[in-house]
Amino acid sequence: MASTKTAISPTRNEDYPEWYQQVIRAADLAENSAVRGCMVIKPWGYSLWENMQRALDRMFKDTGHQNAYFPLFIPMSFLEKEAEHVEGFAKECAVVTHHRLEPDGKGGLRPAGPLEEPLIVRPTSETIIGATYAKWVQSYRDLPILINQWANVVRWEMRTRLFLRTAEFLWQEGHTVHATAEEAMEETRKMLDVYTDFAENHMAMPVIRGEKTPGERFPGAVTTLSIEAMMQDRKALQAGTSHFLGQNFSRAQEIKFQDQNGQIEYAWTTSWGVSTRLIGALIMTHSDDDGLVLPPRLAPTHAVILPIYRDDSQKGEVLAYCHMLRKRLQEQTYHGESIRVEIDERDMRGGDKKWYHVKRGVPIRIEVGPKDMANNAAFVGRRDTGESRGMPIEELISNAGKLLAEIQKHLFDKALQMRIANTVDIHTLADFRDYFQPDDEQGRSKGGGFARCWFASEQAVQPLLDELKVTIRCIPLDAPGGSGKCFATGQDAATQAIFAKAY
Amino acid sequence: MASTKTAISPTRNEDYPEWYQQVIRAADLAENSAVRGCMVIKPWGYSLWENMQRALDRMFKDTGHQNAYFPLFIPMSFLEKEAEHVEGFAKECAVVTHHRLEPDGKGGLRPAGPLEEPLIVRPTSETIIGATYAKWVQSYRDLPILINQWANVVRWEMRTRLFLRTAEFLWQEGHTVHATAEEAMEETRKMLDVYTDFAENHMAMPVIRGEKTPGERFPGAVTTLSIEAMMQDRKALQAGTSHFLGQNFSRAQEIKFQDQNGQIEYAWTTSWGVSTRLIGALIMTHSDDDGLVLPPRLAPTHAVILPIYRDDSQKGEVLAYCHMLRKRLQEQTYHGESIRVEIDERDMRGGDKKWYHVKRGVPIRIEVGPKDMANNAAFVGRRDTGESRGMPIEELISNAGKLLAEIQKHLFDKALQMRIANTVDIHTLADFRDYFQPDDEQGRSKGGGFARCWFASEQAVQPLLDELKVTIRCIPLDAPGGSGKCFATGQDAATQAIFAKAY
Repeated sequence: MASTKTAISPTRNEDYPEWYQQVIRAADLAENSAVRGCMVIKPWGYSLWENMQRALDRMFKDTGHQNAYFPLFIPMSFLEKEAEHVEGFAKECAVVTHHRLEPDGKGGLRPAGPLEEPLIVRPTSETIIGATYAKWVQSYRDLPILINQWANVVRWEMRTRLFLRTAEFLWQEGHTVHATAEEAMEETRKMLDVYTDFAENHMAMPVIRGEKTPGERFPGAVTTLSIEAMMQDRKALQAGTSHFLGQNFSRAQEIKFQDQNGQIEYAWTTSWGVSTRLIGALIMTHSDDDGLVLPPRLAPTHAVILPIYRDDSQKGEVLAYCHMLRKRLQEQTYHGESIRVEIDERDMRGGDKKWYHVKRGVPIRIEVGPKDMANNAAFVGRRDTGESRGMPIEELISNAGKLLAEIQKHLFDKALQMRIANTVDIHTLADFRDYFQPDDEQGRSKGGGFARCWFASEQAVQPLLDELKVTIRCIPLDAPGGSGKCFATGQDAATQAIFAKAY
Repeated sequence: MASTKTAISPTRNEDYPEWYQQVIRAADLAENSAVRGCMVIKPWGYSLWENMQRALDRMFKDTGHQNAYFPLFIPMSFLEKEAEHVEGFAKECAVVTHHRLEPDGKGGLRPAGPLEEPLIVRPTSETIIGATYAKWVQSYRDLPILINQWANVVRWEMRTRLFLRTAEFLWQEGHTVHATAEEAMEETRKMLDVYTDFAENHMAMPVIRGEKTPGERFPGAVTTLSIEAMMQDRKALQAGTSHFLGQNFSRAQEIKFQDQNGQIEYAWTTSWGVSTRLIGALIMTHSDDDGLVLPPRLAPTHAVILPIYRDDSQKGEVLAYCHMLRKRLQEQTYHGESIRVEIDERDMRGGDKKWYHVKRGVPIRIEVGPKDMANNAAFVGRRDTGESRGMPIEELISNAGKLLAEIQKHLFDKALQMRIANTVDIHTLADFRDYFQPDDEQGRSKGGGFARCWFASEQAVQPLLDELKVTIRCIPLDAPGGSGKCFATGQDAATQAIFAKAY
């Protein structure tokens, strides 16, 4: 039995998967809906997504991209054109077959108006966007096309988990077209840089940048790059992918152009995306046994002011003081924007009110009562460290931006230390088996983490990986190169990758 | 034959519906996709939508609303619960019946994995959101719920037209829950005010605010309020609606709460929405025979600078001057934001470049050549009036914000004058028939406009309206009241409404 009571039960140690669900519930982020696998993103969760969107959208525009919008539906025949692609998605497609409802004669309804060709609700839009690009691209002068789309997509998943794996999710998908392979590959890398910047500097989530092995690539891609983060249960989470599609989709969709020499060529395309899954990653990177912990860059509220008073005569004075304090804090900036401050004036027990904001992850709590007022002070609590102390309000105001920056940095550093402490080099099969023991009954990893291993053949190690439920996350871009001995076979190996259990 | 060549052919007078399509094409706003009825919104069109979203989202938040996200799919049984609602939407529902694809044995694919219950792609979300709210609402303390959703919806339309009527469109839908009818009705009116403010002050599109007659209400609503605008062909376009749903949906979805006296009651709900249809309205309100005309409040680019030079030696100097000019213009503000200025440096014939921006509706064009530079001047063209003249750049810079405000006001005033000039009071059936003559072969109204008429019974005039393809747009909220004689029957009538042909 733990001696300290935590706001979230069970704790991470007791039952990690259930802790995750309870953090979401306690922070009021999302819930399951009446439709299998589809979630409802509640206001606090959606405001996190809005902040993510705003930051990413700025980055996409700063790298020359524009937004557009393409159809939700894809004709079935479009999917058939790229063989690997359809194989990758056929098993999880929501299929529209009718376009109206009619009375079923028993007081209910039934589908009517069968479509000539079934339509797929987009699981990803390479095919439908490619068909449009084929019409836009005639000459090298029409290139590059640099477009992003914010949209919902559907992948029919049998086992779903809020944010991490849902039948419908929100995402952005970039789709670009280039005249040369080099330029397309440069775009693929550039967008991985953008995702890395976002993950590390906005989400405070350190990531490993790498290339996927052939078995883990996006269906239809030539090269898939990804960023991989470590969650607190030491499992990996793929947080964003950027694909070099070569000419695969341009051949399937006939995206051709006349080059400067008058030759007709197939274009080179890329696609890249991140989704509401990032909210799951954010939760599992920073949250603790008291609930959600938000990095200030993405927090909808930076600081909440909690007025404390015993009666109405105190209330008026305290509230006036709180409004003054909010105004002064809002005049301060953090990353070029006004600090986001709320006052929680609800009529509620002080302890309940405090825990309400603890569980929702607000970075700074500021309690103000008559005594604090008299001393020109406030009682300031940090969500990330749990520290709290009285502080002169002039100090609070002048240091607010700095404090937020400190919290942001602390969260990143802590997550990085956690990853470093749980990343090992493994050279033998015995050590590998020992490191990746089966999960316990609650689906919690026993030991484990990231293992850096040389390996000779993806196909040769696949049965072992399937047995242990381990996957090759990526071949890190910053790997030192050289060669080693395969951990499984002892053969010479030219590739070193990160192995881990993963979400 | 017109003596002046126009950029758009045909002109509004020659063939209005085709002119509309050509304006969209020339401005590169959108196009039809390979999927019947679904459009592709191209970057210039989407950036208009982004600007609309940004302004509306601010207004929603300023009136106390939060965003959230609910499922794309609605179980068929949910729709069945509200009889009028399902009747209104059953004929245009995209129905998902399967959740995977399998080989059809002939080298193609076929739907597989039939669903136990078909899912409807949301045509609007009252039912799925209501089912969620039923879980959230227990007590009067849980009310009000004030939530908005930005989403795509699908209504299977047989005859589609870009932006105005498409199978899939983008919109926002507000869904609120209240403890009393009065509060819900106040919300319904408040959101109509927000839409009015947006239409008139951002879109520069004057609207008539009114209540729909029973025959024109949203399926399931008790009261539907709308804003109605007049397009340049004198037809009406419903630009936004706000519905008081009474307890109809809360009864169907079991949204109940315990009031302050401990009684269990059904809640009162509202819903309100505007869509990408507004882009169609924007086009048809302001554009002319040279293409799109954008109101500055929504224009992605306020001013475009067109450098003019004969050779490379001039080019460097002219471009440097243009960059200086852009920087100085960007330091000016319009409605509290930095003026949005682009330089078009593309290597293109000067005339083509000018017309490119004319057709895309950029409010201000600034041409700068070596002579202008020498005189510290520029040649400035207004898109709305077509006027252009040389101007000292200091005058241009210091007046830029004022000029944009003038353009915005001019567009509104012109549209308002147009509506006033084409709104009449009609008292007799003969005059009504004469006013609403059939459209010509191109679908262009001959005469017509808005008719203000007293009428005794909606049902009684319906056959006449169907014959003439006229609809009752709304009973204006600012109608003076009183009574009159029914234009159709001469009976006493207590209601005066706006009648018009409509999109």
